[in-house]
Amino acid sequence: MEVKVMKPILGGNQCIADTNRRDFAAHQLYLINVMASPGAGKTSTLMRLLPELQADHAVGIIEGDIASSIDAEKFQKIGVPVIQINTGGGCHLDAEMIRRSVPELKLAPGGFVFIENVGNLVCPASFDLGEDLKFVILSVSEGDDKPYKYIEIFERADVVILNKTDLKPYIDFNDEYFRRGVRALNENAPIFEISCKTGEGVRELADWLKQRNRAKQAC
Amino acid sequence: MEVKVMKPILGGNQCIADTNRRDFAAHQLYLINVMASPGAGKTSTLMRLLPELQADHAVGIIEGDIASSIDAEKFQKIGVPVIQINTGGGCHLDAEMIRRSVPELKLAPGGFVFIENVGNLVCPASFDLGEDLKFVILSVSEGDDKPYKYIEIFERADVVILNKTDLKPYIDFNDEYFRRGVRALNENAPIFEISCKTGEGVRELADWLKQRNRAKQAC
Repeated sequence: MEVKVMKPILGGNQCIADTNRRDFAAHQLYLINVMASPGAGKTSTLMRLLPELQADHAVGIIEGDIASSIDAEKFQKIGVPVIQINTGGGCHLDAEMIRRSVPELKLAPGGFVFIENVGNLVCPASFDLGEDLKFVILSVSEGDDKPYKYIEIFERADVVILNKTDLKPYIDFNDEYFRRGVRALNENAPIFEISCKTGEGVRELADWLKQRNRAKQAC
Repeated sequence: MEVKVMKPILGGNQCIADTNRRDFAAHQLYLINVMASPGAGKTSTLMRLLPELQADHAVGIIEGDIASSIDAEKFQKIGVPVIQINTGGGCHLDAEMIRRSVPELKLAPGGFVFIENVGNLVCPASFDLGEDLKFVILSVSEGDDKPYKYIEIFERADVVILNKTDLKPYIDFNDEYFRRGVRALNENAPIFEISCKTGEGVRELADWLKQRNRAKQAC
């Protein structure tokens, strides 16, 4: 697998992000920036979403990692177009990296591009990639207090996904406290509860995404 | 609670870190930089270590967070000296923040200072704080592949702590794969397995720390 090693650019990210948004809309692509801590289940969520989406849509993946191509290889193995970006230490992807990678996926109009950002609840929050939606995935095992500590990323989320709900019986996770924390920062983002282990809740998320994608293409 | 809002300085971190190491050794303090993803159990690990250490040693905490003082308040409530630093977006602590905070803890010689860094497996790895030891805590729910993806932090770890071992029955976590990943980067760091829920393994870690602290003070 070819791995792109890219360093974040220093300025002009917003301008490139705005251009991305315009150009990818012209190609009828729907981009989703997936942000989460290491191990929250970014790759697993995408793996679960794929079969739900692929019947009606092309799907491609951009994998961001400090190092390695472990996750990209999982997608490659099942025949999903994937570009691996290694940031070599950089803690987030930027709009230029996305600009250079999306065309290589060669997706048909109406396609979904999932951008798996570097695992981190801090840095990725501040960088617009030109995406249509920002996902923030939190696993229940990370704790119900995360919205109170990682404010910017929950403020900016368009969708909040609570993953690993199968672990709830074994963990003290206060749903009400978590939801209150999210709502204090973000009035509108829907909160989806899913389990990548059992598949619970994944179809609802996929249906919502397909509806959003269709609504955009109909504009 | 007073919260220090501090922005990372731009240069000279290594010089300040070296000065910290010299000055804190002169005061017979033992500093531990605790690094982990959000929700891996940094605060819970310290909460469990405290009763094991406090009989023989003063213990103080420096809490680093983007925002909030949720964790610091937990320590304050049980009478442990604690300084809260809010980085206001910065994804790591730096040596100057530690330099300004440690004296305010007013710890007796032989004391432990635990520095709970901002939750993140990327940025904190590169910044020497002048600590004696770097802890990297990983919870089993984050997955066994993390050493393959977050190379620098596992390379630099002096101690690797695998937390939430009580969740192992419910998670596919390959111990051998995890340990092989750590050892490929780091030949020497001991790997402690603990559960902050049950307390398992915490005493062994505490005993090892006390031994290291005593060995340093005896130099």
